[in-house]
Amino acid sequence: MTSLRVVLVSPRNPLNIGAAARAMSNFGFIELRLVNPYQVAFREAKSAVGAGAVLKAASEFATVAEAVADCTLVVGTTAGSHREPRQPLYGLEYGARRIRKHQGPVALLFGSEKYGLSNDNLSHCQWLIEIRSRPQHRSMNLGQAVAVCLYELVRDRRAAIAKPPARKPATAEQTEVLRERIEEALKLSGYYDHTAVAGAQRRLRALVKRLNLSRDDAAVWLGILRQIVWKLRSGS
Amino acid sequence: MTSLRVVLVSPRNPLNIGAAARAMSNFGFIELRLVNPYQVAFREAKSAVGAGAVLKAASEFATVAEAVADCTLVVGTTAGSHREPRQPLYGLEYGARRIRKHQGPVALLFGSEKYGLSNDNLSHCQWLIEIRSRPQHRSMNLGQAVAVCLYELVRDRRAAIAKPPARKPATAEQTEVLRERIEEALKLSGYYDHTAVAGAQRRLRALVKRLNLSRDDAAVWLGILRQIVWKLRSGS
Repeated sequence: MTSLRVVLVSPRNPLNIGAAARAMSNFGFIELRLVNPYQVAFREAKSAVGAGAVLKAASEFATVAEAVADCTLVVGTTAGSHREPRQPLYGLEYGARRIRKHQGPVALLFGSEKYGLSNDNLSHCQWLIEIRSRPQHRSMNLGQAVAVCLYELVRDRRAAIAKPPARKPATAEQTEVLRERIEEALKLSGYYDHTAVAGAQRRLRALVKRLNLSRDDAAVWLGILRQIVWKLRSGS
Repeated sequence: MTSLRVVLVSPRNPLNIGAAARAMSNFGFIELRLVNPYQVAFREAKSAVGAGAVLKAASEFATVAEAVADCTLVVGTTAGSHREPRQPLYGLEYGARRIRKHQGPVALLFGSEKYGLSNDNLSHCQWLIEIRSRPQHRSMNLGQAVAVCLYELVRDRRAAIAKPPARKPATAEQTEVLRERIEEALKLSGYYDHTAVAGAQRRLRALVKRLNLSRDDAAVWLGILRQIVWKLRSGS
């Protein structure tokens, strides 16, 4: 996966070049290649404050053919515009899965901000991926498109299903002591009289259970109630 | 899902405000709320060329409490920095699943470019999500973080598994005719002599099958070979 080369074809905006490099750094990709970038933009991006290692090591090529020469899979990105693609077009979700499975260096091509990948650029690609978006507004910002594609490549499929470990829940003993303290506070404040029935107690216990407190939070609440009870007692 | 409110807390950069709005428009979210934005930036973003409907309809609030008042679930985003979160922290993959399942309006909070969400901001959240990124470079660009979160909310889980419909594969008849034409071209060019053995024919058939041609591409190749055979014949 670190063998992925992100290839920006004719990028024009230094902020987008910088944003692509930043997303790569965030998600752990290191090899940025630029084909025929607008020179002023490339220089500006490289000299920007905070330009990371990815941008400093970015390499430049005159043609797409040269930029992808060492790759065994070349994938283009498209906003799903009107042009009829001659290659298979996959959704990002499925395309990323194929890229992950590929053995060997992969080039992922992004077109210029204004025109995307040309038909000539596209002819270098085995297949294309599109980020599914609203038909009325398909065209994504270049930096955001790079971020979304790289995110999909590294996203953890199991994490979407597995519930992460919860905080430690309060013990039954804690909730019971808490229930007692609340009851005491209620009695002291005249909400209950001293002959409160067992039903009220059960309802209060269930009420406390439904708070679903963590162990730490239960301890905090217990401290709060102790203080309230103390105040109620000393005031009476 | 259209009941999601994207809440930017104290954004400072008009480009980021614009990028957040653009990602929302791409992925079909309409309600952008800004808490205490840098006024110059907000005005600049709204007046930018191409500022879409989302940005024009964005509403402004003085405090987080007011911005999330009508929501039944408030979720914060964090780069997973050093601060110990008092709320559960989920990966984006799992958090997005919970948001999708929630019945009722949800607020998704993003902090300022420089500081993220403050502890005070975070106290309004039921739980937090983080985009898992490289520990050495966690902090994402605001516009990119918004894009990635919204993408995860709308991504199609089934699309990642289901193979999209392939192009129509070539028929056996097509590949057989193609094999014959290639054989003819090879004989005419002297690669085979006229007594080519059956084994060579079988190997050629397997070779053509492995090309895994689509119906359309098989027709193109057949045309190419017809032309070559015609030329070889007329030249001999």
